[in-house]
Amino acid sequence: MSPNIDTAGLPPGTVVYSGEKKTEKVSFTLIEYSEKEFIEKEFQNFDECLLELKPEMVKWINVDGIHDTELIQKIGERFNIHTLTLEDIANTDQRPKFEEYDNYLVSIMKMLSHDTEIQAEQLAILLLDNNTVLSFQEVHGGDAFDIIRTRLRTGKGRVRKMGADYLAYCLIDAVVDLYFVILEKIGDRIEVLEEELVQDPSKETMRFLHRMKREMIYLRKAVWPMRELINNFERTESKLVKKTTRLFLRDLYDHTIRVIDTVETYRDLLSGMMDVYLSSVSNRMNEIMKVLTIITTIFIPLSFIAGVYGMNFDNLPELHWKYSYYVLWAVMISIALGMVFYFKRRKWL
Amino acid sequence: MSPNIDTAGLPPGTVVYSGEKKTEKVSFTLIEYSEKEFIEKEFQNFDECLLELKPEMVKWINVDGIHDTELIQKIGERFNIHTLTLEDIANTDQRPKFEEYDNYLVSIMKMLSHDTEIQAEQLAILLLDNNTVLSFQEVHGGDAFDIIRTRLRTGKGRVRKMGADYLAYCLIDAVVDLYFVILEKIGDRIEVLEEELVQDPSKETMRFLHRMKREMIYLRKAVWPMRELINNFERTESKLVKKTTRLFLRDLYDHTIRVIDTVETYRDLLSGMMDVYLSSVSNRMNEIMKVLTIITTIFIPLSFIAGVYGMNFDNLPELHWKYSYYVLWAVMISIALGMVFYFKRRKWL
Amino acid sequence: MSPNIDTAGLPPGTVVYSGEKKTEKVSFTLIEYSEKEFIEKEFQNFDECLLELKPEMVKWINVDGIHDTELIQKIGERFNIHTLTLEDIANTDQRPKFEEYDNYLVSIMKMLSHDTEIQAEQLAILLLDNNTVLSFQEVHGGDAFDIIRTRLRTGKGRVRKMGADYLAYCLIDAVVDLYFVILEKIGDRIEVLEEELVQDPSKETMRFLHRMKREMIYLRKAVWPMRELINNFERTESKLVKKTTRLFLRDLYDHTIRVIDTVETYRDLLSGMMDVYLSSVSNRMNEIMKVLTIITTIFIPLSFIAGVYGMNFDNLPELHWKYSYYVLWAVMISIALGMVFYFKRRKWL
Amino acid sequence: MSPNIDTAGLPPGTVVYSGEKKTEKVSFTLIEYSEKEFIEKEFQNFDECLLELKPEMVKWINVDGIHDTELIQKIGERFNIHTLTLEDIANTDQRPKFEEYDNYLVSIMKMLSHDTEIQAEQLAILLLDNNTVLSFQEVHGGDAFDIIRTRLRTGKGRVRKMGADYLAYCLIDAVVDLYFVILEKIGDRIEVLEEELVQDPSKETMRFLHRMKREMIYLRKAVWPMRELINNFERTESKLVKKTTRLFLRDLYDHTIRVIDTVETYRDLLSGMMDVYLSSVSNRMNEIMKVLTIITTIFIPLSFIAGVYGMNFDNLPELHWKYSYYVLWAVMISIALGMVFYFKRRKWL
Amino acid sequence: MSPNIDTAGLPPGTVVYSGEKKTEKVSFTLIEYSEKEFIEKEFQNFDECLLELKPEMVKWINVDGIHDTELIQKIGERFNIHTLTLEDIANTDQRPKFEEYDNYLVSIMKMLSHDTEIQAEQLAILLLDNNTVLSFQEVHGGDAFDIIRTRLRTGKGRVRKMGADYLAYCLIDAVVDLYFVILEKIGDRIEVLEEELVQDPSKETMRFLHRMKREMIYLRKAVWPMRELINNFERTESKLVKKTTRLFLRDLYDHTIRVIDTVETYRDLLSGMMDVYLSSVSNRMNEIMKVLTIITTIFIPLSFIAGVYGMNFDNLPELHWKYSYYVLWAVMISIALGMVFYFKRRKWL
Repeated sequence: MSPNIDTAGLPPGTVVYSGEKKTEKVSFTLIEYSEKEFIEKEFQNFDECLLELKPEMVKWINVDGIHDTELIQKIGERFNIHTLTLEDIANTDQRPKFEEYDNYLVSIMKMLSHDTEIQAEQLAILLLDNNTVLSFQEVHGGDAFDIIRTRLRTGKGRVRKMGADYLAYCLIDAVVDLYFVILEKIGDRIEVLEEELVQDPSKETMRFLHRMKREMIYLRKAVWPMRELINNFERTESKLVKKTTRLFLRDLYDHTIRVIDTVETYRDLLSGMMDVYLSSVSNRMNEIMKVLTIITTIFIPLSFIAGVYGMNFDNLPELHWKYSYYVLWAVMISIALGMVFYFKRRKWL
Repeated sequence: MSPNIDTAGLPPGTVVYSGEKKTEKVSFTLIEYSEKEFIEKEFQNFDECLLELKPEMVKWINVDGIHDTELIQKIGERFNIHTLTLEDIANTDQRPKFEEYDNYLVSIMKMLSHDTEIQAEQLAILLLDNNTVLSFQEVHGGDAFDIIRTRLRTGKGRVRKMGADYLAYCLIDAVVDLYFVILEKIGDRIEVLEEELVQDPSKETMRFLHRMKREMIYLRKAVWPMRELINNFERTESKLVKKTTRLFLRDLYDHTIRVIDTVETYRDLLSGMMDVYLSSVSNRMNEIMKVLTIITTIFIPLSFIAGVYGMNFDNLPELHWKYSYYVLWAVMISIALGMVFYFKRRKWL
Repeated sequence: MSPNIDTAGLPPGTVVYSGEKKTEKVSFTLIEYSEKEFIEKEFQNFDECLLELKPEMVKWINVDGIHDTELIQKIGERFNIHTLTLEDIANTDQRPKFEEYDNYLVSIMKMLSHDTEIQAEQLAILLLDNNTVLSFQEVHGGDAFDIIRTRLRTGKGRVRKMGADYLAYCLIDAVVDLYFVILEKIGDRIEVLEEELVQDPSKETMRFLHRMKREMIYLRKAVWPMRELINNFERTESKLVKKTTRLFLRDLYDHTIRVIDTVETYRDLLSGMMDVYLSSVSNRMNEIMKVLTIITTIFIPLSFIAGVYGMNFDNLPELHWKYSYYVLWAVMISIALGMVFYFKRRKWL
Repeated sequence: MSPNIDTAGLPPGTVVYSGEKKTEKVSFTLIEYSEKEFIEKEFQNFDECLLELKPEMVKWINVDGIHDTELIQKIGERFNIHTLTLEDIANTDQRPKFEEYDNYLVSIMKMLSHDTEIQAEQLAILLLDNNTVLSFQEVHGGDAFDIIRTRLRTGKGRVRKMGADYLAYCLIDAVVDLYFVILEKIGDRIEVLEEELVQDPSKETMRFLHRMKREMIYLRKAVWPMRELINNFERTESKLVKKTTRLFLRDLYDHTIRVIDTVETYRDLLSGMMDVYLSSVSNRMNEIMKVLTIITTIFIPLSFIAGVYGMNFDNLPELHWKYSYYVLWAVMISIALGMVFYFKRRKWL
Repeated sequence: MSPNIDTAGLPPGTVVYSGEKKTEKVSFTLIEYSEKEFIEKEFQNFDECLLELKPEMVKWINVDGIHDTELIQKIGERFNIHTLTLEDIANTDQRPKFEEYDNYLVSIMKMLSHDTEIQAEQLAILLLDNNTVLSFQEVHGGDAFDIIRTRLRTGKGRVRKMGADYLAYCLIDAVVDLYFVILEKIGDRIEVLEEELVQDPSKETMRFLHRMKREMIYLRKAVWPMRELINNFERTESKLVKKTTRLFLRDLYDHTIRVIDTVETYRDLLSGMMDVYLSSVSNRMNEIMKVLTIITTIFIPLSFIAGVYGMNFDNLPELHWKYSYYVLWAVMISIALGMVFYFKRRKWL
């Protein structure tokens, strides 16, 4: 998660891929639709992809793989995209942001997935003036966008009736929906952890707690800037975003606030759990100390007494009395009981 | 309390109920009133409910149950409500918010109740342009609104003389009043807890403290957005809210600030109590250690001395002196007293 | 200090007294003055009080006792005061605030006193358009206002030369001056506590510290809103406040900032003292442990050696050597000294 | 450092000295200068001082001692200064602030010095419209201002060429420069403390740390408002401040930000050091416990074994075997070595 | 890192070098370029350097060494730079800032390097109206700027085609790129530290953690003001910055936000690690205590029993029974096993 330095020292606007090295071929899907028509094609070659565009339909070109920087530059030239934007698309360490250029709007965000730990993949969505949405993903993020593809294919919902701006909104909405899925998983884990904390906290609990706190730090870093992103998207004065779509963006803004709220709530919960853990460690220490103290304070005086009558003095009168031994036991038992009574009163037993 | 994912992946504006599954029939109450008249009816069927509306009276339609999403859509069509609003009404995980549409204002908030722990139920209040208030509750939240019904029936107070905006204000006011009730209960519990903390803190105290801190986190999440909600309601430029009502909304805003203030105060108090708990655990540890140390340091040297004269050396002159045993007791008692004196001086006894 | 729920569920604008129940008769004092004249009267009856008002003089009506809600309503009608204001006057749980109505300005604040703990009493000051100041107190808050009465009687200072707005300012100024008195008392107590903390912290110190932290929480709650109150008072566009008085209000605003600054400083100090307390508890634990460890590690090996030569083996050659016993003492003393030397080097002694 | 209550209850605008009581005579220095001329005189009497003023020269009247309130009032009348300003000059508990009146600008700030602890002295600087600067100090703060006097006398730098506003700036600049001197001293002390913390932290370290934290609290209280003071001075619309001087004030503003930055950095450092101290106390505890545990767990089992063969049973076969004693030593040494090995593996040794 | 006081007491605008004393000769490099031409020269003498300037080319004069204050004043006179700016250039304790003067823009920032600890060197970049960039460094910061020199020489990228404002941007960009390099190094170290913390935390871990926290404090101090600097640079109304360059500055602003984000994330991570460290210390203490308690509570009762039968009473019947010894062993083993069982149930073993 450390910042990438591959671009340090390069001229600004240099398109450099900063993620893990990959050699797979980049693939394109082109979806074109209007209220009545729907066309979907997959290509291995970008030029091919551009041949068949129909001007009157909404176009969504999805690029899976951003490690082929030459290709990104080619796309950039074709659609007249600023090199700074191209640099941002290829650099996987971007902070989520929304930017407005003369001829297009670009949103860069993190698409999160969560197996054993949270993984972030960069996604760039460009809304171009000629009815076109471009999306760039690191890997094929099928799950999140498949739902939208299905909606487009079947024509259910209003998406086919609306423009490219609504499609861009739908894509971002799908990303934010994924956050909810991840937060629910984390919420479940927090509940399990809390149960564990009350029942039987171990060193593992602590480490798990720490790992979750760290995850929340990264999640927070990905989620907070989304608020500004969507807010700027909603409030942009660009004509690319229609008024009807702005209403949906306002709704999406509320969703983002909810995500942030939940992240903050989880952070608070995890902090509280840390306190509970630490106090339970202290309590356990107290328990251990109590046992030690009770055993020690009962037996040490008794051992001393036994030691006294183990001495070999020629003149030690008690040794020769007939009932000494029995008297001694009585004394020792009294001392022990006295101690026990004292501990009871102090509520240590 | 985790965010709900049932709606993730669905087209925006899809009305999905996200609370616990229910099968009960949704019920409606319709109240119509003017300064002179008052009509109250309960229906099982929405169409029936709409038959008898009188245009010149203020109408309050209360819907108990939001799990019947088809019905909500039907109501939405009838009153020309945006699908995003309908989605918000049915989705029980909404964050409290106020939204302004062309033809109506909508406030979504949490109605809290508190038996053993805080429970939140979603409530949506819509102020429609034709003198109508719509309210949607998860379950029949009789308690809070019964007071307003009684006021409407009897005609006491100014509510019958004023419009639908004042009614909407009254409903929100009833919700905020409930917060005070809950805060008072929590305040009492904090006092009990503080007493316990000073007297005799146990592991249970800690857990209870933690549970209350968690409750405050959730309470805070429900209460903070109310401030913005009411502020926006007061400052809306919509003509649906009259100037006289705005004065009452300003007052309600102050109430909300008071609620938030109290929540924050309780959070501070609970944090302080956590510190006291931890320091009392440390103090108790010190006490235990002191007892252990005192007993050990007194008896261990004595045991050693007894051990010395339990040795079986052929040549151990002291064993054969006549008064050795008595001298030894004198020495041992002096050592013990010396130790006690030392501990007194160190204030350990 | 828990929020009061007596008003929950009542129609807004209902005047309900929310403090402790009282039955004493409410009393009025009327002061009328101009630069040349000064009249002061005490009444048991409000109507009587209003008979003799002289229109050209500044009037200050002070009401001691706000539990008689009927009377407050009567006054409200007489001076044309909004029911929401009347509700605020009688409800002792108000947050300090300044409100502007068409015909009057109202400031509600806490008058603090401090015997064994801080006590807050509500005070409402109304500046009415016809040269009149109304003040409502829970009990007779003589001390704070007597100074102003004396100034009015004697005509010293500029108060007799100025209008009702200056009088209102003087009353609030007297309240803020009281905060300084209380802060000085608390400052003295903090110094004593700090002394105690360095010298000899006990469990009592901790509890006292906690109590003071709690007091600061309540003090803060009362003091912070004063800033906004006075700021709003100074910046109001109402013609009731003259320009010369605004200069004094600006000065009062600075005083309030100073009060808040001091409260925050005290909070910081108390937090720091908590840390010192906790670290001193830890240090004390270390001391105790050191004593235990030193005694134990010196005597346990010695006891073991004595134990060895207390064994009854038939064949244990050392027992029969002539100087064994003396050699043994030499060995034991060497071990003890070795240990002491080791502890010295580790700086435990 | 507690707030002063001597003025509580007095009419606003009453000039009361709130510092320690003093009886020394107040002294005046008058400096008059233009680019070519320079006159410096010391007076014991204010009227005398005013006799010789030359209208075309810049005048700086410095008053050492503010306990003679009558005199302050006299000066106030002479220069037409508002009583609230006079009150602020004499009240040594002022918060640093900048205020603008019709005919003058006033800056009140703290002049800090640092011997064993930080001491604050109040300073008021008034910029009057007729080319005059008035400065009021508690005691003769020679050090800080002597530099400026020297610059005036020698005519070095630009100060003689510029107006009274530049002189006022120079005086404040001298005060801020003093903050840097103090911060450097504190920085040195923090470095020493850090060294100590790593080498050999003692209870004294903790107390010193606490004292420094407290000092930072007071320093912060004095320094933060300076930012606003200078910002307001720079941005005032008053014609008394010329454009060229504003540039210098902007620079001074940067200096103040640097002072605040450093104070905040020191606070962070001290907090971090507190953590280090606490963890080093815990570590030391662990060390002590380890020694105790190692000694105890090695010798207690051995002592037990010795105890067994010290029993006096008639029938205890091992006692009569020839090599029992040697076998026993072998066993005991094995146990001891086993324990040592176990501790090594656990990294306790 | 303490603030420098060498300038305290000097007239404002005095150019004083505040870094370590140096005697090396200051060196100049002059680069002149247009889209077609490129000239690079190194000088030991400033006057020489100015002889050959060509008005139509972009000029970059880089000064390595700022300790020669006379020279800085000479440069200042030549280019008509305000003395306050010259003072800032020479004073190495400046806070990063951007300032706008009538004829030039100045950016002062920290150039960071990181060997064993972070080192900051001051850098001032001036954009002058006649196509000129001046840069002042403490030492020859070749690494960071060499890349830009190479780009200028080879004419790669757009830098040769653009003006002096773009060059100034490039220089600042190179500085921010260095921050990423340092952050990556720190990120690596944090990962190592985290590994260590989970595996085997020692006192060294704590000290290292503390050192890194301190480094983050200083890093933060250098980085935060960069945001404002670049923001002001981007938004300046000066005609020196062209619109195309502003786009690049906006991008640079995003980079700075990313740097700040990462710094804050690291701070959070380090705080979390501190908690983990402290809890692992507590846990280790618990472990040690457990071992002590187990050994003690098993053997102390057994020792007591052995002690009892080591007593020398004449009448102690058990001593004379034939199987006492064997019975006793059975009893002792049972007690030991009972204890072990008890500890197992309590999960201490």
